[in-house]
Parts: sequence; C-alpha cells; structure tokens
Amino acid sequence: MSTVPLKPVTADFVLADVDTSSHPGVDKKSAEKELLSNHDTLADLQERLFAESKFGGTRSVLLVLQAMDTAGKGGIIRHVVGGIDPQGVHIHAFKAPTEEERKHDFLWRVRPQLPTPGIIGVFDRSHYEDVLIHRVRGFSTPEAIEERYGIITDFESEVAAAGTTIIKVMLHISSAEQKARLSERLERSDKHWKYNPGDVDERKLWPAYQEAYQIALTRTSTPDAPWYVVPADNKWYARWAVQNLLLEALQKLDPQWPSVDYDVEAEKARLAAT
Amino acid sequence: MSTVPLKPVTADFVLADVDTSSHPGVDKKSAEKELLSNHDTLADLQERLFAESKFGGTRSVLLVLQAMDTAGKGGIIRHVVGGIDPQGVHIHAFKAPTEEERKHDFLWRVRPQLPTPGIIGVFDRSHYEDVLIHRVRGFSTPEAIEERYGIITDFESEVAAAGTTIIKVMLHISSAEQKARLSERLERSDKHWKYNPGDVDERKLWPAYQEAYQIALTRTSTPDAPWYVVPADNKWYARWAVQNLLLEALQKLDPQWPSVDYDVEAEKARLAAT
Repeated sequence: MSTVPLKPVTADFVLADVDTSSHPGVDKKSAEKELLSNHDTLADLQERLFAESKFGGTRSVLLVLQAMDTAGKGGIIRHVVGGIDPQGVHIHAFKAPTEEERKHDFLWRVRPQLPTPGIIGVFDRSHYEDVLIHRVRGFSTPEAIEERYGIITDFESEVAAAGTTIIKVMLHISSAEQKARLSERLERSDKHWKYNPGDVDERKLWPAYQEAYQIALTRTSTPDAPWYVVPADNKWYARWAVQNLLLEALQKLDPQWPSVDYDVEAEKARLAAT
Repeated sequence: MSTVPLKPVTADFVLADVDTSSHPGVDKKSAEKELLSNHDTLADLQERLFAESKFGGTRSVLLVLQAMDTAGKGGIIRHVVGGIDPQGVHIHAFKAPTEEERKHDFLWRVRPQLPTPGIIGVFDRSHYEDVLIHRVRGFSTPEAIEERYGIITDFESEVAAAGTTIIKVMLHISSAEQKARLSERLERSDKHWKYNPGDVDERKLWPAYQEAYQIALTRTSTPDAPWYVVPADNKWYARWAVQNLLLEALQKLDPQWPSVDYDVEAEKARLAAT
C-alpha cells in the first residue's frame, strides 16, 4: 500500500498554490487497483472498531467533506465509504437549514449527527457552511463569522476528547474543471437531474469562496481536527487519497477484537444443553 | 437473471412447512455470481428513483427484516444493501425501546425512520417486535397484542398509499442451524463479541417464537405489504433471494430519469458565459 503524502493544513498554507490536477504519491493505474483492494482492509478495521464499542470502547471516526459543487463528494461516499459495511457508517448531508434549525445556534443540528462509538461518521457539508456560504453570501455578520472559527475549534476539541478521530477534507477542483463537469450534466439527459440553475450563481462567486476556504482552512486546522486539501480534478486520485486518510486514521487507532465479559466455556456448556 | 420463485405469505401459510435449507430457483454457484453482477443494476435503479424524487417523485422502498438471532440480517445489509450507493439508503436498527420510546405508542419511533422519497429504507427488526418478543415474553397483554395486528396493517396501508413499496422478509433458519452459528461465535475469538449470553435464553423459547411468527406472518401479510419467508440456512441463498425481491420491486416501479423544470439550452448559455 502506498501512503498518501498529503500534509495537514498549517497556518502558512496557501490554497491558491495547490495544483488541483496533481496526484502526489500514486498513478492512476495503482490508485484504481488499491481503491478496490483496500475495501476489505477498511471494512475489517471498522468492524474491529465496532466490536470494541460493544465492550466499552468509545472511539469513532468522523470524516468531514467540504467542496465546491461537482468536486466529487458523492463519488467519495459511493466509492470509498461504500466499501464499508453500511451498518458501521452514519452519513449525514447538511442542506440549507430548516426554519427550526435556524432558531438554534449553528452547532445545534450538528451534535446529534456525530458518530456514536464504533461508527464512521461522514458529514456531506457541515458546520463549515456557516463560515463559507455565510461569509460569501453575507448570511451572517462579519462579527458572528469571526466568532465561529473559535467556537468550531472548541467544539471539535471537545468531540476529539470524547474519542472521535476527526479528518476534514476539502476536495479541491479548478474553476475550469467545475465548468467541464457542469457542462457534462447539461449535455447528458441522464445527468440533467444533478444540475441546478443555482449552481451557476454560486460559480460566479468562485473567488469569494476560495477566499472563504483559505481563511476557514488555516484558522480551523488543528492537531485535534486537521484539514487536508485533496487535489480533486482527478476523481481517481481524490478517492484513493481519502481512502488512505481513513485507513491511516484507523490503523493508528489499531482496534482489537475485544475481550468479552462472559465466561466462554460456561456459555458453550449452556448452548450445548439446548 | 433468475427470478426468485418465493410467493408472498397467504392466510393458509404454515411456517413449520418451510424447508429452511431449501434454495428454490437457484444453485450456489449461480447465486453467488448473480449477487455480484446485480449490484450495478440495483444501484442504477435506486439512482433513478432518487433522481425522480428530486423532481417531484414521491416513491420509495422499505425492506423490513425480521429473524431469529444469527439468521443473517447483518449479512443481508452488508452484501445486498451494501451494493447500493449509501446516500440512497436509510438503515435503522430497532433495539429494545428506550424509556422515552416506551412512553409513546409502539409506532411512534417507527414513523421518523420511514424512507423519504427516492430512498431505500431498511428496518433491522421493526414494529413487529411488538407482536413477537412482546407475545413470547409477555411484555404486553394478549389484548394489546391482538389489537396491534390491525394497527400494523392500517399503518402499512397508509405508508404504501403515500408511495412506499413495502417488502417484509423473515429470514428463516432451523434451530439446529442457529445452534451451529452460535457455537461458531463461541469457538472463534474474533466472533466472541457477536455472542451475548441472552442469545441462549431466547433460544430456549424457540417454539414460542415460531408460533408468534406464524401468527404475525399470516395476519399481517397484505397486498400492500406482503411477507416473504426466505429459507436462510444457506446464506448465499438468502442474500440472492432478498436481492431479487428488491430488484423485482424496483423493476416494477420502473423509475425514469426525470424531465427537468429548467431550460437546458438557456443554462448552457449561462454556464458558457462564466
């Protein structure tokens, strides 16, 4: 297995310097092969984590996915997360908040979606929308947004301290690549349903979004909850890289089959008597 | 593709007459091959159903799984449901009810877990526990249980009328097969975590559970929400059969890529201008 050479975002990170078409650490052929061959390894590690949780383990993993439209969040969920037992995964897509959700603080709707012990949680968008689209669209005041970076890092530290390994991923595509992908959705009738006229409105705000990401990434990448910017013009690369980030996190947790709290020999005798 | 020859349960159905080791319609080699080759067909049908829901479609599918311990619900979720895009699936495992849930009627916790349009819902256990374990263990009065059969069929008719195709599956194993599977969990240290001493206590009530199933199956199998009893001593057969029941349901729905409500040519021009 190759190791993904991506480093967590640090304070001096510059988003504009990332080559979205790069594929550090692997070529297409190996990436596609490893994506498939790693499914079982990932599934096995998750099952051990789940088993551990049945006997007192409190550890879990949270994968946060953020990206511009068409960058491939759905493909990551289908091709990376899809290789894990669905009983071990909790995926939540954060849409525009409902009226009820808007009455509460921005983390109110996030907390109930955190992974329980043994589970790999996946956030398809997240509380980061509250410093991304909110900044770009002016949905909140600059003061409120400023305050949120600290609220987020405090929140994530608390989640990490409770036993959750947090991996935050920005799938990073170029503006030209987005244009090509939106264009494909308009060319193919079986893709029309994936296109929304609002996508072009958001696209026009590309530079403002890049700026909002630059700020959010550098201000909220912490040792407890690091950000990784994954070059995503190549779908095969992004999938391989995110799978490897998950694998590395789980291998570091190194979950073991638990010692059980019942008497195995006594149970064998009880079962034999039935 | 073979067609699963299982018929829905009717009033004259006798559970004790089912050969749990049978595999009507297929042999092991074909079943294992088809299970894999059908993944894409099932995933494609679900994607169409989801696409339809984005443009006003209200249809969904609900797979209800009930079974004695070790009968293979988990394997169905892993190997059949696991072949579908996880974004298109909502799995809910109904455990012993919480204190909060016990304060409400038995369907209170079920309603919020119903699949939304475009989604395949999976119930790992269900509201049927309220006429199965409740009957066997005397958790409810005979009068309350008697009333529930009608409440359930009314509820399921309402769900079906709202656009949900309901498929109810009992995975049916023999007592001897359960003993062998529990024994394996005690023999292998990587399976110990799956064993619970309570499993033997439940096992001792085998005849009472079979009777409870016999009554529940015959009283709640309706054209709106039919029950299928799937012989499950052979895991390969149960997986193939449930996959085929899902495929047949989706093929009957025959979801199509939707006509979109925006002007495709106008959007092409707007996108080109960015």
